[in-house]
Amino acid sequence: MKPAGPIPSHFSALGGELMLGGRTASALVDEAGDTPLFVYSRDAIAARMAELRSAMPERLHIHYAMKANPYGPLLEFMADLVDGLDIASVGEFEQAREAGYLPRETSFAGPGKRDDELFAAIRAGVTINLESEGEADRALEIARTLDVKPRLAIRVNPSFELRGSGMKMGGGAKPFGVDADRVPALARRLVDADANWRGFHIYSGSQSLDAEAIAESQANVIALASELAAEADVSVPHLNMGGGFGIPYFAKDEPLDIEYIGRALQRQFNDLPSNLAETQFAIELGRYLVGEAGVYLTRVVDRKISHGTTYVVTDGGLHHQLAASGNFGAVVRRNYPVAIASKFDAEPVEEVNIVGCLCTPLDRLGDDVHMPRAEVGDLVAVFCAGAYGASASPATFLGQGPAQELLV
Amino acid sequence: MKPAGPIPSHFSALGGELMLGGRTASALVDEAGDTPLFVYSRDAIAARMAELRSAMPERLHIHYAMKANPYGPLLEFMADLVDGLDIASVGEFEQAREAGYLPRETSFAGPGKRDDELFAAIRAGVTINLESEGEADRALEIARTLDVKPRLAIRVNPSFELRGSGMKMGGGAKPFGVDADRVPALARRLVDADANWRGFHIYSGSQSLDAEAIAESQANVIALASELAAEADVSVPHLNMGGGFGIPYFAKDEPLDIEYIGRALQRQFNDLPSNLAETQFAIELGRYLVGEAGVYLTRVVDRKISHGTTYVVTDGGLHHQLAASGNFGAVVRRNYPVAIASKFDAEPVEEVNIVGCLCTPLDRLGDDVHMPRAEVGDLVAVFCAGAYGASASPATFLGQGPAQELLV
Repeated sequence: MKPAGPIPSHFSALGGELMLGGRTASALVDEAGDTPLFVYSRDAIAARMAELRSAMPERLHIHYAMKANPYGPLLEFMADLVDGLDIASVGEFEQAREAGYLPRETSFAGPGKRDDELFAAIRAGVTINLESEGEADRALEIARTLDVKPRLAIRVNPSFELRGSGMKMGGGAKPFGVDADRVPALARRLVDADANWRGFHIYSGSQSLDAEAIAESQANVIALASELAAEADVSVPHLNMGGGFGIPYFAKDEPLDIEYIGRALQRQFNDLPSNLAETQFAIELGRYLVGEAGVYLTRVVDRKISHGTTYVVTDGGLHHQLAASGNFGAVVRRNYPVAIASKFDAEPVEEVNIVGCLCTPLDRLGDDVHMPRAEVGDLVAVFCAGAYGASASPATFLGQGPAQELLV
Repeated sequence: MKPAGPIPSHFSALGGELMLGGRTASALVDEAGDTPLFVYSRDAIAARMAELRSAMPERLHIHYAMKANPYGPLLEFMADLVDGLDIASVGEFEQAREAGYLPRETSFAGPGKRDDELFAAIRAGVTINLESEGEADRALEIARTLDVKPRLAIRVNPSFELRGSGMKMGGGAKPFGVDADRVPALARRLVDADANWRGFHIYSGSQSLDAEAIAESQANVIALASELAAEADVSVPHLNMGGGFGIPYFAKDEPLDIEYIGRALQRQFNDLPSNLAETQFAIELGRYLVGEAGVYLTRVVDRKISHGTTYVVTDGGLHHQLAASGNFGAVVRRNYPVAIASKFDAEPVEEVNIVGCLCTPLDRLGDDVHMPRAEVGDLVAVFCAGAYGASASPATFLGQGPAQELLV
């Protein structure tokens, strides 16, 4: 038997079934009309945001990194909860505008911004987190053409990285941001070019469950921003400190201690370098805000035995759950939290492999997991499906198409 | 420096640029209107099919496994070249019908077929490769409801596997097919139920470059089919021997010796077991037919240096090239064949990292590759992009959307 990851604590059973937003999994599937289905819970997101606001210093802004989940109704719901939005393309910008975000609350990071993307974002008044000197030249030129004052910040490639991070975005050579030692000259140049200078974006990693490492990284970010500003002799109107807040996906993962991070950050804020006294600080979070609020529901279409192993075959799979299948950055596949949603409070009685419907051995949702007996027609839930699920998976593979989505 | 994979030999330069279908890469981008762009070459596909027909016994049918590339115009083009089509979903079936394939030339394999999929396929007269006894029951029941004689074959999970296969589909416990020891009983049952009995589908692996291993596997498949038919006392109207023919993706990969496979298969055909004398044999190939005929073109949007490493940042990436980025079943990322398409005959002068535009360190197209100097505006080509590219990648990730596609 291999363990599955921990089911987020806010889920419970109703009439024996997994409950989401006060309704059973099967009622939600009926409402959506079909499986596979992503369900995202407003209550879970709101509760997460409330905990976070309470733990973090009041001075800190919280931005939503919409790459985690750009589903329209969810994006609209987030707009009332967060202080800003981080986008990674003009495609995301258009989705954000439809969902009601103001351009001035929006910042745009990404190493490969096209001229047409810079044009649209600068014209609208979005803050550009510049990733290179070349991009800075292009942005200034486009702003001249448009005759506007562009809102420009610099994404810094710091020399430190976030310890224990699932994905390192800083430390050594990286395609992201400008190496710290070249930042002061660029910052000076932007201010001298009369841009609307916004400050720095310093992102050092993501998906960390180590509160101490995150606090240390935030302290490093603040110190670095102060140093760079002093060297360039510029102010720092805004400092985007990145994200990095992880969620438990796998057995033995422990939830992040955000109280610890909040206290450490408050101490930092109590003792800021003088050139950051007026700075607006922000963190950008995606997965941490919405990941645990989502569930992926898929129906059992076959149950079969091969050489003594039982396979529960579902109508979902890696075309909606690439990361859960172990095919998105993972070296070794481990089980996400998974359950038989239609028998949520039943005792586990057998060890099974839960697989998707695709004709490839890569399509795995649960390996050797201990489950209640699932029959054809039962619903399987994969948890932690609120982030990097629907939009980060190859939905058209094998002629399948996207899953349904619901915000409840 | 890390080596890139071998560029397929049919590509050459025209006016210094990569040429496809007699036109330069930049002319094709102009025609498509934008990058990123997949270009597939009719000539390359036709040449590949001609070589294959010439190497294989005349008796052998060649099917196209459309999961490799379902782009409409390409699918239509293939319809005139192959003897049958293998589909993996009803979504693919609908695309196939639009492209002009006849249902009776079409077979449907996949471990998670839904009732609605079985219904549509059986009603149309598609051959179902049954993956379990449970699926057989459902298929027979649906056929009764429809009052038709369903075309049924059994997908066998063989006890052997294809040596050196990139993806093992047989050997031990698998979600695919019915364990060989249970196949005779099921075959007998289908014949007794008065189904239109079609025979067996025995698939043992994919993406092998070892001709001896493939020949050995084909011999095993023929022997197994004969054995199973004898034990069940059924005929074998059709035997789908699977695929497995690989293409060179990485440095040191050598093209598959299809002449060797063809000769070995001819010897098998010369000496068939008597109960296979009337059998129609087929292989199903996807990647081998179209993989090397496709190129992915993306434009350089930035060129930057970080800690001494040069990054060439493009407007494409893993959202169209998941496998090339190393995130689809690969344990260790290796470089696909890659080139500066707009300087195709220029000498390499520098070592660079070619990356995509996504804000994730996973978005890599070429690590430490030796290239001509690429400037902003130059075109980068990723080869072997004809299979498992556009449709097997998370196109909507980070708000990007699908690439353009052209058949030339």
